[in-house]
Amino acid sequence: MQKIDVCLSPDLIHLYDLVGKAVVVVDIFRATSCMVTAFAYGAVEIIPVEDVDVCASHREQGYLISAERNGVTPAGFDFDNSPFSYQVDRVKGAKICVTTTNGTVALRRSVQAAQVFVGAFLNISSVVRALKAWAGDAIVVCAGWKGKPNLEDTLFAGALIDELVGQYSVADDAALMAWKQFNVASSDLITAVKHSSHVNRLLGLGIEKDITFCLERDRYDVLPHLQGDKLVL
Amino acid sequence: MQKIDVCLSPDLIHLYDLVGKAVVVVDIFRATSCMVTAFAYGAVEIIPVEDVDVCASHREQGYLISAERNGVTPAGFDFDNSPFSYQVDRVKGAKICVTTTNGTVALRRSVQAAQVFVGAFLNISSVVRALKAWAGDAIVVCAGWKGKPNLEDTLFAGALIDELVGQYSVADDAALMAWKQFNVASSDLITAVKHSSHVNRLLGLGIEKDITFCLERDRYDVLPHLQGDKLVL
Repeated sequence: MQKIDVCLSPDLIHLYDLVGKAVVVVDIFRATSCMVTAFAYGAVEIIPVEDVDVCASHREQGYLISAERNGVTPAGFDFDNSPFSYQVDRVKGAKICVTTTNGTVALRRSVQAAQVFVGAFLNISSVVRALKAWAGDAIVVCAGWKGKPNLEDTLFAGALIDELVGQYSVADDAALMAWKQFNVASSDLITAVKHSSHVNRLLGLGIEKDITFCLERDRYDVLPHLQGDKLVL
Repeated sequence: MQKIDVCLSPDLIHLYDLVGKAVVVVDIFRATSCMVTAFAYGAVEIIPVEDVDVCASHREQGYLISAERNGVTPAGFDFDNSPFSYQVDRVKGAKICVTTTNGTVALRRSVQAAQVFVGAFLNISSVVRALKAWAGDAIVVCAGWKGKPNLEDTLFAGALIDELVGQYSVADDAALMAWKQFNVASSDLITAVKHSSHVNRLLGLGIEKDITFCLERDRYDVLPHLQGDKLVL
């Protein structure tokens, strides 16, 4: 049987052999939710980069630019890290360069995998379909918060496992714990994440509607994946 | 209110500021369960070291020596990594040098904390009492398995939090998840860990009775703590 594992933080990725595997990178609040939304609104390419200056320099090459550090957006960027900021006409046909505190780090550290998909609750069924069509093992890489595991990415990993059991078996304890965590929380994810420190940090930024939006399942039927250093559909 | 956090793996310890805090190091299967058992049987000192050769060299200095790598004991050592191996007369009054795959690593990486306690289900009430008497914040450092989080250490962290809420608040998502994980499993820990990869690894070594023993609560009323590079009562 195929195996599915969960890496709870990019700081643990050195412990996982990604070669030949399908990786799903997830940063529910809010990088991968934003990326999925951007592609749903017609973006044609997203380049994730780790550095704010590198991101800014992409404007000269015709990219729209998006940056987030510690939940907020530095001045001079086209988008902040809210999925609502991508629901605009100029996203259609756009190439976008993105840097965020956690999500882009997780993406860049996953490059040696055979396939890197961008996952969020917003496109979870698209991810499930891709992993059902995949013949090898899979690893969910949670972006976490500055290296620490977080609840919402772990819940997404558990939700994915919940859809894949039967075809995939749970590889290790982190995956087992994520699955259990999701089973307990699945009937009401919003309440489950209310006590999360990361969510409280975000609520302090006044983005309650982002939280609700990012926990919505299957709003979009798109599956961005990494091709070289770019995300495309 | 005091805060309690959980570091799910020694490979994440760089993300936690241990200075001025009380740390509880836990390696349920089986390093800290063995240490607690050894002190309960009269050991006066345990030196945790990371290297098998360094451990062996302590014999010349009058130490009994104990080593484990990948769940098994190299030839020529006095104890293996079973708590039953310490339930013998010669442990009384002994100084012991120990090296294990995970537990000793977690201990050595926790040295900058103000206090480092050795925790296990076997002595959990002793740990709870110490943390109730402690005035600062606390962090549970889980030994995990070769850097990856594991279920049993996470469950212990959750059990500890469950006893301390009221005096301590949960610091971050890892602690929140550990607590939730324990709440779901608390009525039957043995069944809960049966699907754990680490437990299956250990069951392959034929140590089912160790598993049951290490999940027993409050068999011993001892609290080893780190003093310099040595564990003492």
